[in-house]
Amino acid sequence: MTPTLYWKDGFVEMLDQTRLPTAVVYQTCKDADTVARGIKELWVRGAPAIGVAAAMGMALGAQGLPEGREFQQGLERIGAMLISQRPTAVNLAWAVRRMQAFARSLEGQPVAAVKAAMVAESQRMLEEDAAICRAIGKAGAHLLPDGGVLTHCNAGALATGGYGTALGVIRAAVEAGRALAVFADETRPVLQGARLTAWELMQDGIDVTLITDNMAAHTMKCGRIHAVVVGADRIAKNGDAANKIGTYGVAILAREHGIPFYVAAPLSTVDFSMASGAEIPIEERDGREITHVFGTTQIAPDGCKTFNPAFDVTPAKYIRAIITERGAVAPADLHRLQDPDLDATPWLVK
Amino acid sequence: MTPTLYWKDGFVEMLDQTRLPTAVVYQTCKDADTVARGIKELWVRGAPAIGVAAAMGMALGAQGLPEGREFQQGLERIGAMLISQRPTAVNLAWAVRRMQAFARSLEGQPVAAVKAAMVAESQRMLEEDAAICRAIGKAGAHLLPDGGVLTHCNAGALATGGYGTALGVIRAAVEAGRALAVFADETRPVLQGARLTAWELMQDGIDVTLITDNMAAHTMKCGRIHAVVVGADRIAKNGDAANKIGTYGVAILAREHGIPFYVAAPLSTVDFSMASGAEIPIEERDGREITHVFGTTQIAPDGCKTFNPAFDVTPAKYIRAIITERGAVAPADLHRLQDPDLDATPWLVK
Repeated sequence: MTPTLYWKDGFVEMLDQTRLPTAVVYQTCKDADTVARGIKELWVRGAPAIGVAAAMGMALGAQGLPEGREFQQGLERIGAMLISQRPTAVNLAWAVRRMQAFARSLEGQPVAAVKAAMVAESQRMLEEDAAICRAIGKAGAHLLPDGGVLTHCNAGALATGGYGTALGVIRAAVEAGRALAVFADETRPVLQGARLTAWELMQDGIDVTLITDNMAAHTMKCGRIHAVVVGADRIAKNGDAANKIGTYGVAILAREHGIPFYVAAPLSTVDFSMASGAEIPIEERDGREITHVFGTTQIAPDGCKTFNPAFDVTPAKYIRAIITERGAVAPADLHRLQDPDLDATPWLVK
Repeated sequence: MTPTLYWKDGFVEMLDQTRLPTAVVYQTCKDADTVARGIKELWVRGAPAIGVAAAMGMALGAQGLPEGREFQQGLERIGAMLISQRPTAVNLAWAVRRMQAFARSLEGQPVAAVKAAMVAESQRMLEEDAAICRAIGKAGAHLLPDGGVLTHCNAGALATGGYGTALGVIRAAVEAGRALAVFADETRPVLQGARLTAWELMQDGIDVTLITDNMAAHTMKCGRIHAVVVGADRIAKNGDAANKIGTYGVAILAREHGIPFYVAAPLSTVDFSMASGAEIPIEERDGREITHVFGTTQIAPDGCKTFNPAFDVTPAKYIRAIITERGAVAPADLHRLQDPDLDATPWLVK
């Protein structure tokens, strides 16, 4: 398994995912600014992995801060800087706030101890995330029948602390003996499906076939897709789910072909403060992502206008179930997962 | 206007569309085999332009044939060779058969005269096609309201003898004073939208914004698309329409958003011998088109499996009207256009 990011000698080693699949290169992040750059420039991407990266960025940034009031103020400043890198994934702000609250909870302890504890806490978040992904996989594996499964973008080990959300469900189903043929949308413009999902599944020996995004409808019509499972960057309280651009279209196509559409995500991706997906901010990125593949191969005329939204929102009505570490639920039941003391859960999607 | 192909000094100059938009390069075709290669390797593409190219290929091939029975036999052989290059566009076989019938109609004339007449006939087909495109434009312009128009692939001047089918409708609407904002799907894997449609419309000063294929759904949801118009490679008698891969998905998305979806094509694209689209053969092309942009920029892992259908079929139920040189009709009325003596046409889509 190629780790997405890890601590080494007091610094954060971050897999530069923009170089995959033809090169495995790590960037050494010695400060929070470099982590921020990695988030902005997509060395690391995927809502859960961005959250872990931000936590590590907070811990890195803490190392250079002085004692006293300036310590908490510094964490505020670094957190705001990290959060400003990308607007859509809620895990980014969630992780920053968790690290800030953690540091506040240690107030009064020697600053060196707080700094060391923050490093350990960010490492714990990485491990927690991988464990949550395994729980998501377990909660969703039974939903995938033998046959074709379509996924969009990369919600895999590379997008998380390990194992993956959507790909976690796929991995768990394969581990449970299911015979799956995965179809991966290439996911333009940044090609996370071609570069990351295909690569990750091939490394695990899971059967995967790459298609361009616009082939999904025809592949469904050919009867080769029996379920769709994707990740999410932010889910509103009503179950509307923001995910990589193109997800909304896939959801419509799935419904038109009578194919169940699942969203797999940790509860940290659910923003219970947002009533619906209409409130989720959608990041627009530089049009050069569209006009130049990998920033170099020009595919469009000079000066061509573009529209480059990085995400879209899939309304809850298209989603059969949201698969979380606490079980798979219909979007209408998502709010029930706020209750920390679940016991009877007759509403779980079996 | 950059011509798609033309006669020069007894040879066919063919615009190598694989080099657009960064280079305007013509390939000189001195024989039918080179024309066939151009069809296979997508120097020329688009059903009507493929038809014209095949006609020119027949005329070129005729030049080297001996007199007598072997002349017609040679035309049979060259025609079969040309038709075998691509299976989906019906215009290819249509043009070959038209040239064969034309040659047969001249039997008894000196072979040199027949050869010259075939060159002239192929040139006439080019001019006819451009005229047909203008008629299509006139028949469909009133269907586009002020606002956003989405198109997929390239059904423009580059795909025809000139002016275009889908882009002909757009051009005619602009000429009629409509304020259009065109959105062009980039159309992976061969990127005809990014490379050709954006280029062609920019050359004409028509407002165009490039999006990736998977952005169409979100762009529709944002209220920026008010009509969709695409071309076709083959239309069955019931109105089912084969067109570039991705078209079927766009049609589903359009219906889900209440946006009218139009197909623009000459009657030579209608295959009245096919009852429905289920019979239309769908070409599968080399997976390297997906894994390597322009054959060189690798975007997927070595050895990655692919599925690369070049076309899909949009069922008639998603199509508001088919726009032909004889008017725009609902798919259910398409069969009426077989009648060469139309007078009352109350069923035209106004």
